[in-house]
Amino acid sequence: MYSFLNNEFLPAEKTFVHVSDLAVQRGYGIFDFFKAVNGKIPFLDDYFNRFYRSADFMQLPVSLTREQLKDVVYELLQRNGVTDAGIKIVLTGGCSPDGYEIATPNLVITQHALTMPSAKLLEQGVKIITHEFRREMPLVKSINYTTGVWLQRKVKEASAYDVLYHLQGEVSEFPRCNLFVVKESGEVVTPARYALEGITRKNILSLDGAMPVTAGTVTLKDVVQAREVFLTSTTKRVVPVVQVDDTIIGNGKPGPVVQQILSELVKKEGHL
Amino acid sequence: MYSFLNNEFLPAEKTFVHVSDLAVQRGYGIFDFFKAVNGKIPFLDDYFNRFYRSADFMQLPVSLTREQLKDVVYELLQRNGVTDAGIKIVLTGGCSPDGYEIATPNLVITQHALTMPSAKLLEQGVKIITHEFRREMPLVKSINYTTGVWLQRKVKEASAYDVLYHLQGEVSEFPRCNLFVVKESGEVVTPARYALEGITRKNILSLDGAMPVTAGTVTLKDVVQAREVFLTSTTKRVVPVVQVDDTIIGNGKPGPVVQQILSELVKKEGHL
Repeated sequence: MYSFLNNEFLPAEKTFVHVSDLAVQRGYGIFDFFKAVNGKIPFLDDYFNRFYRSADFMQLPVSLTREQLKDVVYELLQRNGVTDAGIKIVLTGGCSPDGYEIATPNLVITQHALTMPSAKLLEQGVKIITHEFRREMPLVKSINYTTGVWLQRKVKEASAYDVLYHLQGEVSEFPRCNLFVVKESGEVVTPARYALEGITRKNILSLDGAMPVTAGTVTLKDVVQAREVFLTSTTKRVVPVVQVDDTIIGNGKPGPVVQQILSELVKKEGHL
Repeated sequence: MYSFLNNEFLPAEKTFVHVSDLAVQRGYGIFDFFKAVNGKIPFLDDYFNRFYRSADFMQLPVSLTREQLKDVVYELLQRNGVTDAGIKIVLTGGCSPDGYEIATPNLVITQHALTMPSAKLLEQGVKIITHEFRREMPLVKSINYTTGVWLQRKVKEASAYDVLYHLQGEVSEFPRCNLFVVKESGEVVTPARYALEGITRKNILSLDGAMPVTAGTVTLKDVVQAREVFLTSTTKRVVPVVQVDDTIIGNGKPGPVVQQILSELVKKEGHL
């Protein structure tokens, strides 16, 4: 399997960065992640928009134009002989002489196996826990997952699937997923603030299905009192949540809204 | 020049980590930094205490015992033929198959040139700016400096030396330094909360000099109304601050307390 580093394809196991890179020294960098399905990458423009936006905000110049980057990504799939895979693009702070100033970024593109949630998981739903925290730059897809990685032990200890961040009563996001709740009123809401603008979230917000979906304020109380709760991400698409800490959501089973949204989403992806 | 990686000394320019390391993927890791002076490392036990404490908190096992680590550090100095240098130990989250779970950490030890503040800088003092932020795990020497690195542009644009973090009126620390203020009452105080426990800070807190130095609450108001302000770190030792944003501190010149603390500190380091 190949990866790509700056300007060349390399065997994946031989793709290294020097330890002076600001990612290693200071955890400084951004990334994005998307999936190829049947040799095509759905919503690639959206992912690229976010990637270049994150890079710009973090003062990291991208050495490749969007067209060049697109060519590299498709060539990587071709070289690796796959049509279905996850693709991750990391842009680091670069090898910094003083270990603090931003240098010339290293661009790393790697291919990953994709595992979609199982039918059983979608049928049963999952338990999540909550944690008081807000990411420092929620709108930027920075590589900083210090708290998220650190919390994995607690997630496992609680036999949970993921952990939801909240601060002063307002919920924001999961470390790698967005949140949606179906309120008692039937309204479907995702946090408008302090959350990464996920592409799956964006697609759900733009569904012209039966129920209106909006971005707004979501409190911890809204979550535990919700009729339905679900999380979304590129890799997981939609996963129903049936328990939040010790509280059972609804009747403890995935509800009709999450099913409908999932089927509309699949349709939307398929229609590309 | 040599570096050390896990279990071997390598030419510094050939010391790499694989891109699957959690430092690159998720900015996950810890580090510590200390200096060798005349072939000895002052306060090494303190630095090691902090390093092993950070590693433990972040769920990162250290492959070397304290004695082994000490031997490696001194051998690195010897191999590089230096008696005065900065030494940085980074412990990453390791090469993670799924890019999220903590794996076997990579231990990276590198040697760095040391530049102490110039006499002119100590004589004139420096300007700092302020920024509303608090690090997510202030007591852990994590590699996450996302906001600190990102703010360097603002620091330069303001012709400042560093940036002081505060939240809801309470100041905590600089990205890489601790803060001290000399209040109007003559009391010398450093923030007790939300600040990394710097070894230089610890040494100043334990000086048995003329003035009492304590850890307590320090507000932004305390800073701008202070008689003297200074920052401390391993590399910089003590640097007087004479301007905070647009406010001149005291008469705009370094005061007598910072001078005295610096001379007591030098004496303490020299007495080891």
